[in-house]
Amino acid sequence: MTNPTAAELTGRPRADALRAEITRLAAELAQDGTPPRLAVVVATEDEPTAWYVRSIARAAARTGIACDTVRLPADASPEQIRERLSELGADPTVHGVILQTPLPEGSVAAELADAIAPEKDVDGANPLSLGRLAAGLPAFAPATAEAVVQLLDAHGVVVAGRTVAVVGRSTVVGKPLAHLLLDRDATVTVCHSRTVGLPAVTAAADIVVAAAGRPGLITAEHVKPGAVVVDVGTNPTPDGGLVGDVDAAAVGAKAAALSPVPGGVGPITTALLLRHTVRAAARVL
Amino acid sequence: MTNPTAAELTGRPRADALRAEITRLAAELAQDGTPPRLAVVVATEDEPTAWYVRSIARAAARTGIACDTVRLPADASPEQIRERLSELGADPTVHGVILQTPLPEGSVAAELADAIAPEKDVDGANPLSLGRLAAGLPAFAPATAEAVVQLLDAHGVVVAGRTVAVVGRSTVVGKPLAHLLLDRDATVTVCHSRTVGLPAVTAAADIVVAAAGRPGLITAEHVKPGAVVVDVGTNPTPDGGLVGDVDAAAVGAKAAALSPVPGGVGPITTALLLRHTVRAAARVL
Repeated sequence: MTNPTAAELTGRPRADALRAEITRLAAELAQDGTPPRLAVVVATEDEPTAWYVRSIARAAARTGIACDTVRLPADASPEQIRERLSELGADPTVHGVILQTPLPEGSVAAELADAIAPEKDVDGANPLSLGRLAAGLPAFAPATAEAVVQLLDAHGVVVAGRTVAVVGRSTVVGKPLAHLLLDRDATVTVCHSRTVGLPAVTAAADIVVAAAGRPGLITAEHVKPGAVVVDVGTNPTPDGGLVGDVDAAAVGAKAAALSPVPGGVGPITTALLLRHTVRAAARVL
Repeated sequence: MTNPTAAELTGRPRADALRAEITRLAAELAQDGTPPRLAVVVATEDEPTAWYVRSIARAAARTGIACDTVRLPADASPEQIRERLSELGADPTVHGVILQTPLPEGSVAAELADAIAPEKDVDGANPLSLGRLAAGLPAFAPATAEAVVQLLDAHGVVVAGRTVAVVGRSTVVGKPLAHLLLDRDATVTVCHSRTVGLPAVTAAADIVVAAAGRPGLITAEHVKPGAVVVDVGTNPTPDGGLVGDVDAAAVGAKAAALSPVPGGVGPITTALLLRHTVRAAARVL
């Protein structure tokens, strides 16, 4: 008897390829007098958020995209945040706008995101972007959701005609991902914290995407032998590390393929934010 | 051995109750100087469409809502349609706007519907409405999708924690319905014409909603014994009648409950268009 181990669905090769394309496009745009610029609005002193924003800024710098961190006080009002987003929408030197979460108490991202100009909404946060995506119209998808599809593509995983269980119904991952997968002819089941008998539901699927934000939620009983499993979870550990939603050891021994955390969906997500930014600068959606 | 027959999920009692509420609200609005008015934009000479629009106008008249059929030529351009929608958006005497399909060749409803003012978008056709719905923000849902949820409610069918297979991924029914059901804590699978092994997928579900527009698509093998089946199909028959997507005889002998066509989802759909119109007039979304 062999000891099967799941293939590792690493995101780095696709992220590298995307970055090469982005670097080329950013250089062309700069030469044409439109140096691409991304603005990340931050209204929190949360340290993991600061770390994430720094990682975006670093990735942007490496590809030749300017990245401004636009700081607001951690007690900023919804009106202040909305006003700042509108200003960035009107600024012709800014091409991409991200509203970073968490937000101050009293502010809800989905309610403020309509102040992000749709043509600069590089993380697909404006409800209009989500609606256009759902309606099959051109729109920037939330980068994490699109990254899942790109990761599967990069590893030759066909989704058309297959069943996909998406665990998590968030506006930033689960719901837009369902639409992206439907567009590709997958049969999609959206599961969540109120799903009864989750293991049986996910174990019926050819592909399982874990996007619930609960460490270790997906165990061996949640996946059928030979399934493809994508782990979108990025849960901070007490020692400053990162774990996904999947029990990698148990699932890795049963699944055909599993994406690592970190190094799976994450690198592609960051690359897509930058790709959307150069596309916004080039006015190619 | 008994000969089981599915309970009939008729839509008329709920539609009647809604109409009573709407009539009362419409009278109040008229008394306050805001007689509610619905405009239906029609750019086709299609006879079933004309019939449907007349049925909306009749239902509106019965509840005290003015209903204008706004006719455009069957060869109207997208620009003409868009302009008309914008005019209606700016007209303070009009509270609800519906863009009736089919549209002339070259016009796509999803692409034109962003010209419907969101606060008058009583059939949830503007992508912004769909995105707000998906994001859990207040929005008018497409009436047909909302009617499915209302029909289940009216008959005491609980969806929370249950599995629902939605057959059909249209922007007007399948996709918004998935969001409405997710909001109610159902576990939702969206199936479509490219779903492989549809009977097995739908037969795993507690509730099956047929919204594919294919007469007789759902047969006994597609449903498990005791399932609840909602038929959204409205397929014209050669003799001028209407049939759903469900083989009612076969499925009726196996399911616990089945909605009839006509008389199931349809009456509630019309009532909800009118309810949205009075809500739009009252500025209560």
